[in-house]
Amino acid sequence: MGQYAAPLRDMQFVLHELLNVEAEAKQMPKHADLDADTINQVLEEAGKFCSEVLFPLNHSGDQEGCTYDGDGVVTTPKGFRQAYQQYVEAGWPALACDPSYGGQGLPQFVNNALYEMMNSANQAWAMYPGLSHGAYECLHAHGTPELQQTYLPKLVSGVWTGTMCLTEAHCGTDLGILRTKAEPNGDGSYAITGTKIFISSGEHDLAENIVHLVLARLPDAPSGTKGISLFVVPKFLPNEAGEPGQRNTVKCGSIEHKMGIHANATCVINLDNAKGWLVGEPNKGLNAMFVMMNAARLGVGMQSLGLTEVAYQNALVYAKDRLQMRALSGPKAPEKAADPIIVHPDVRRMLLTQKAYAEGARAFSYWAALQIDKELSHGDDAVRSESADLVALLTPILKAFLSDNAFEGTNLALQVYGGHGFIAEWGMEQYVRDARINMIYEGTNAIQSLDLLGRKVLGDMGAKLKKFGKLVTDFIEEEGVKPEMQEFVNPLADIGDKVQKLTMEIGMKAMQNPDEVGAAAVPYLRTVGHLVFSYFWARMARVALDNEASGDPFYKAKLATARFYFAKLLPETASTIRAARAGAKTLMEIDEALF
Amino acid sequence: MGQYAAPLRDMQFVLHELLNVEAEAKQMPKHADLDADTINQVLEEAGKFCSEVLFPLNHSGDQEGCTYDGDGVVTTPKGFRQAYQQYVEAGWPALACDPSYGGQGLPQFVNNALYEMMNSANQAWAMYPGLSHGAYECLHAHGTPELQQTYLPKLVSGVWTGTMCLTEAHCGTDLGILRTKAEPNGDGSYAITGTKIFISSGEHDLAENIVHLVLARLPDAPSGTKGISLFVVPKFLPNEAGEPGQRNTVKCGSIEHKMGIHANATCVINLDNAKGWLVGEPNKGLNAMFVMMNAARLGVGMQSLGLTEVAYQNALVYAKDRLQMRALSGPKAPEKAADPIIVHPDVRRMLLTQKAYAEGARAFSYWAALQIDKELSHGDDAVRSESADLVALLTPILKAFLSDNAFEGTNLALQVYGGHGFIAEWGMEQYVRDARINMIYEGTNAIQSLDLLGRKVLGDMGAKLKKFGKLVTDFIEEEGVKPEMQEFVNPLADIGDKVQKLTMEIGMKAMQNPDEVGAAAVPYLRTVGHLVFSYFWARMARVALDNEASGDPFYKAKLATARFYFAKLLPETASTIRAARAGAKTLMEIDEALF
Repeated sequence: MGQYAAPLRDMQFVLHELLNVEAEAKQMPKHADLDADTINQVLEEAGKFCSEVLFPLNHSGDQEGCTYDGDGVVTTPKGFRQAYQQYVEAGWPALACDPSYGGQGLPQFVNNALYEMMNSANQAWAMYPGLSHGAYECLHAHGTPELQQTYLPKLVSGVWTGTMCLTEAHCGTDLGILRTKAEPNGDGSYAITGTKIFISSGEHDLAENIVHLVLARLPDAPSGTKGISLFVVPKFLPNEAGEPGQRNTVKCGSIEHKMGIHANATCVINLDNAKGWLVGEPNKGLNAMFVMMNAARLGVGMQSLGLTEVAYQNALVYAKDRLQMRALSGPKAPEKAADPIIVHPDVRRMLLTQKAYAEGARAFSYWAALQIDKELSHGDDAVRSESADLVALLTPILKAFLSDNAFEGTNLALQVYGGHGFIAEWGMEQYVRDARINMIYEGTNAIQSLDLLGRKVLGDMGAKLKKFGKLVTDFIEEEGVKPEMQEFVNPLADIGDKVQKLTMEIGMKAMQNPDEVGAAAVPYLRTVGHLVFSYFWARMARVALDNEASGDPFYKAKLATARFYFAKLLPETASTIRAARAGAKTLMEIDEALF
Repeated sequence: MGQYAAPLRDMQFVLHELLNVEAEAKQMPKHADLDADTINQVLEEAGKFCSEVLFPLNHSGDQEGCTYDGDGVVTTPKGFRQAYQQYVEAGWPALACDPSYGGQGLPQFVNNALYEMMNSANQAWAMYPGLSHGAYECLHAHGTPELQQTYLPKLVSGVWTGTMCLTEAHCGTDLGILRTKAEPNGDGSYAITGTKIFISSGEHDLAENIVHLVLARLPDAPSGTKGISLFVVPKFLPNEAGEPGQRNTVKCGSIEHKMGIHANATCVINLDNAKGWLVGEPNKGLNAMFVMMNAARLGVGMQSLGLTEVAYQNALVYAKDRLQMRALSGPKAPEKAADPIIVHPDVRRMLLTQKAYAEGARAFSYWAALQIDKELSHGDDAVRSESADLVALLTPILKAFLSDNAFEGTNLALQVYGGHGFIAEWGMEQYVRDARINMIYEGTNAIQSLDLLGRKVLGDMGAKLKKFGKLVTDFIEEEGVKPEMQEFVNPLADIGDKVQKLTMEIGMKAMQNPDEVGAAAVPYLRTVGHLVFSYFWARMARVALDNEASGDPFYKAKLATARFYFAKLLPETASTIRAARAGAKTLMEIDEALF
């Protein structure tokens, strides 16, 4: 039933050799004492937990699914509860949390590495703690001191879990039309009534309490997105001792039967005058919720990296084992009935695509997590602001580009298995089904693309994009004169130029016709995604060249994968740029009735 | 639970206005009396059967699946058996079969249209009769007169069904290493022993007998593919009256649990000295089986068209109904809480991609079926030979390009539904899961690509490709001078030139290094697939322009879709050509140990 081993060597390469996180942490007062050994030990322990505890529950969890036992009770698959207890006992929920509430205070980039591994091992399971961490971040940023005292220690220790309750049946993307109502009770609390759907981890048997963060409208709220407030609504109302007391009138009405992530309960949540407390200011709930949504978007990036990695690991083993046909250039294993399929060029194309997407995603997403740490904790205000801009710009790319790639990668992994890939028992088709949701939830990839192009790029006349562009041009200026880097720097410079021109062109067209933004957004995001990956692959190639003489085959593999990326994957931009430039006309001129 | 209506208008457009099949049939002696009205009546009746009988069983069939009741018995989902009885009673299995065996003798292109609709309505169900039709064609071409008398009338009437038993656990693509043995019994029959896997429709409760066509080795057979023979192995041995008699020792050992096509039984078939009879010559079984494999590959094309069409129909309804956000250019339905999502450019991109792929596939696949009819039945030998070459060349494209597009199309349809697309109840995720197998079975799409580039194109120094090229250049010469056709003919001529150059370049490289074929094959097939689609979209545009003045909005829609195809989909070739040209180096230079 497959295998998973944490890719510790590559994780350490990214953290220490590429990003030099120890030195970076020295610039952040609260992480100044962090050393590489500590990080490596945490990763190694986490890797063991993921391989030994979570991974064995992945396929069985998918096959069994969650069950709704009527009357609001949800049971998770066998073993999930015990694994969660082990997770809590080992203190993993607290890893990157504030020490004021019991956290261990490690940086976000360590937590991201933990989440990569948990998602490789078991995405459906990892969504339970994942949502909790988002709720923690939201309350940490926007809760009143009382709410923080009540909820944060429980979320940090993991004895309570969290959810985000946004969607209603008639509104997913369009939160402005949501209907759930919140009426003041007169005692500082609110009575909240409405029905939420698609609530991941909305009900389960892993923890003693569940903390829902719920979007709703106050009685006097303006219509649209400016009339939405955020509330914390616990399943059990905390009593005076802060322990779960009276059952609140928030209840799971049913769970969905889905294509994938079967072991995560996707709930209808009914609120019937449920008691809740305001988080942040009235009518500014979306603002408060954005903390959680951004965390969730980065979380989808880590889910996508995790699935790409584990599917690749399994496809690779199969490609080395499975004997089928002879190499076109003559037998490679003449003593056997056929050659292992890894001799075939197209099997290698499929494997290298997965490898290049996984390793590119790891470099990008760990770097993004480091930017979040710098945004939150760097000693220099200018650096904090710079990092905040980079994170804002790149979050939609991290969510959408990585989840598109994960769907492609898991599908290629399935394809390596041939007919066996389609059979549940081999485990590969689950990765495809699980990966499919990542392109949808936390804002579809089209919404991410509009966020990138409309808000993040055109919204500030390209200012944030220029900041990322400066990183790229600095690297090109530094490395462009070195002969051994030509093969990497030249295509990087080329795609950089093309993104700049494309952005200008779309910006001009959008001033005439706003539909040009919607028409170009999706291929635009994929184009900029490749600029980002080109930058990280060129940087990784630099590090690998510096260490090639060591004889460690790791660097040789890294260089070969970089060369593959530039030769075979970056060329996708030739068509995405054409598609982005093709404009709105052929999309919009056809009358609705003619479809 | 969704909807399906046979797209009769577009089917008639393709058959009558684009392909002019009535005039074509006049050139085939055995179809000379066929008229358009008959065809249309058949299509209309078939459409009703598919919408009313098969479609309502699609989702329930997926949810229920087949069950293996132990001891070789397989039960299909509720309603499947009754639907099959109706199918048989209506005479549908006989549609395109030889009147000598009870068939109705209609051309293949009518049968293809029937299969498009059956696959839209219920791919898993359609695979039962689909395999039977392949077995019919194989026995019709290669069976002895005795075997034909025994089996063909039963397959034609549909009271018996068929299978193709090729794969074994250790050999899928690589049939040369198969191990199933056939020993002569001395009475003209053979005792066949072995285990076959992945046998679609291998056991079920729809019909009174099942006719397995089994690949096996004779005792003295040479090793490899030149030692494989084909046998017919019935579940029940026909008695003297030709009715099912003694139970043969061929038995289903289990069924697979799969990602999709749940309602089709994918069987392990154990043969334990099962009685069988040779089909075709000893050791030339692959040659005989190729009739069935080619039929099956065209069948996968029809499955892929069927799924693309039905997913599109449903996504379109949802996109018109679902209210979410306002158009970027201002409200379009100000009286409602939000605009229908079809106002958004990217939703239109997703819909038009599906529409362009479905209609392009219909034109291409019906034309291909017409070529098969010409190959089999045209009065002129030269035409028959020309058509045979075109069918051989284009079969791998029809299988792989259409199934790739169907996976993309069904995924886009799911994406239009947002979160609801991921929920089983809405029916969209089933289309994605069902479509996934089409890229694998009957030869993976990589194998199709090698067949196209290695065998069909380079294998005869481009002779067959030139025959298709001549159709394209003839069209360009005819239409290229007309101003209204510039926008279609120019990109067609451009992709035609590029395919020619690319083919030459790969051919030259392949002489140095055969791995260059394997490295280029997959992006090469997608490139040629777009040449084929460009040709058919340009031809459809011509017909639409000729009829635009009629005021029928159908032609306006066709032109708009053609424009979309050239603006947004054909540009994929910019990257597939680059990927094909990038060569084998970055794939092959990395040592297996470094992956």
